[in-house]
Amino acid sequence: MILGLEVVLADGTVLSSMNRMLKNNSGYDLKQLFIGTEGTLGVITKAVVRLEPVIARTGTILLAVPGFDGVTALLQSARRMLGSALQAFELMWGSYYDALTGPDGHSPPMERGSPYYVLVETALPASDETMLDDFLTSALEDGLVTDGVVAQSEAQRARIWKVRDDFDAILRSGDTYLFDVSLPIAHMHDYVDRVRDACHAVLPDAIVHVFGHIGDGNLHLFVTPRPGGTASKTDRKAVDECVYAPLGRYGGAISAEHGIGREKRDYLPISRTDAEIDLMRRMKRLLDPDLILNPGLVVKT
Amino acid sequence: MILGLEVVLADGTVLSSMNRMLKNNSGYDLKQLFIGTEGTLGVITKAVVRLEPVIARTGTILLAVPGFDGVTALLQSARRMLGSALQAFELMWGSYYDALTGPDGHSPPMERGSPYYVLVETALPASDETMLDDFLTSALEDGLVTDGVVAQSEAQRARIWKVRDDFDAILRSGDTYLFDVSLPIAHMHDYVDRVRDACHAVLPDAIVHVFGHIGDGNLHLFVTPRPGGTASKTDRKAVDECVYAPLGRYGGAISAEHGIGREKRDYLPISRTDAEIDLMRRMKRLLDPDLILNPGLVVKT
Repeated sequence: MILGLEVVLADGTVLSSMNRMLKNNSGYDLKQLFIGTEGTLGVITKAVVRLEPVIARTGTILLAVPGFDGVTALLQSARRMLGSALQAFELMWGSYYDALTGPDGHSPPMERGSPYYVLVETALPASDETMLDDFLTSALEDGLVTDGVVAQSEAQRARIWKVRDDFDAILRSGDTYLFDVSLPIAHMHDYVDRVRDACHAVLPDAIVHVFGHIGDGNLHLFVTPRPGGTASKTDRKAVDECVYAPLGRYGGAISAEHGIGREKRDYLPISRTDAEIDLMRRMKRLLDPDLILNPGLVVKT
Repeated sequence: MILGLEVVLADGTVLSSMNRMLKNNSGYDLKQLFIGTEGTLGVITKAVVRLEPVIARTGTILLAVPGFDGVTALLQSARRMLGSALQAFELMWGSYYDALTGPDGHSPPMERGSPYYVLVETALPASDETMLDDFLTSALEDGLVTDGVVAQSEAQRARIWKVRDDFDAILRSGDTYLFDVSLPIAHMHDYVDRVRDACHAVLPDAIVHVFGHIGDGNLHLFVTPRPGGTASKTDRKAVDECVYAPLGRYGGAISAEHGIGREKRDYLPISRTDAEIDLMRRMKRLLDPDLILNPGLVVKT
């Protein structure tokens, strides 16, 4: 959604690349040097952002899904039946849903105890009144879901989203580390099991909660190494290893959305090759030879 | 739609950046160095491309529009009423439509002689049967269009697209130069008038035909400097000046889709600043210090 940028380079040059065109193949697309490079190649001082009209009306549905195979079948069905109206497909592992709707959590929009919950949201044009109902009926008939609630009001929609969004209940349960990884959907179930097993091998009481934007291959993991207690630097390192190490075999990414910073820098070789990291270093040296821009972030220099 | 690339660098390094994730913020997004840089920074040897399911059913409509204000109002209406189903909004200036549906051209899907024609295409989910009819009715009622034809068969759809796609009739009318520019929609009408006037000042018989993907701000111009005759190198240079020079004032791009190559290299400063071109040169020197990769393309080195 970024069309143009103004960037101050390390030598003080103001690089104005304030393109407003959706299509522009007039020379190198320089803004890409600065998007997602965490301020290590230049300081962004202006941006041209493409806006989209506010969606007039959304449809929101929460579904209980009995198994992971059903989740992937449901995603395929949503893509087929809802097409470009599909805006969100949020998967919550049952333990995440249960933790957020526990005694001191949110009131559950539907019964707890299902292995998975999926929140689907659509942008509805006027003629699509029945789209979500048809989708739910078909999913129930195919046995992909055991229960479904279509939000009937903005208040009910907000209540459903709270269960996905507002995870304070987890954070209150003890020091908790949040992760942001991506990997192919086909491997997600195995991956989460593997992370749980690895965590339990070193921290027997650790709790792992997971939700994800799985249409994008993106999972967020919450690991509480010592529920009710305080975690140490050693715990942190152990948990990092448990979460990141298995990603290599799946071609996954140690950061889907949030970047590398300093925390994940040592794990970058899990997701990127030596040749890639070498080229990142060469770009860094080209654009910031004196290492004055966010030094130490992303790659060691 | 490009997720990953394998690239051979100038020094022979094989850079494997074959990401398959939709979201990956694990370090610099290196593929962007090679996308759209016309082989000047590396040789792409593999690509991971995101695919979308074939659209099961499309809706196609051709509209006659009496003025340019109507065109922009129609685009707004299409975005509002068709939402994410809108797949194409193709504008043809009347002279383009007339040239392609002339005596030895295609049979016209609707009457010739309108100032503008717009081709709209939608991806229809099952429930959207009436979407295009509603759109046409509303556009007629609002006086935005004077006529409209909804394709009733694949054959009729193909016939409508031929008038947009198959511009051999123009190429047969004499040596013709094709252009690919982008600029804000609000300035398109002025811009085309300005190009026509400029061309006529130096080449009185020149014919300028235009169509565009105007939702993307992208126009394609066809200039035939000497209809029925042969054009010279001097004509070419004169026409290039007429088409490119006015773009600077609109923040437009001398190439929307097709790149710079050698032909447009000298006009790059119309669309890009000195600081930008300098940075492109520094990137070129970093990645290809011996200038062995497509030397001379995009920027002078």
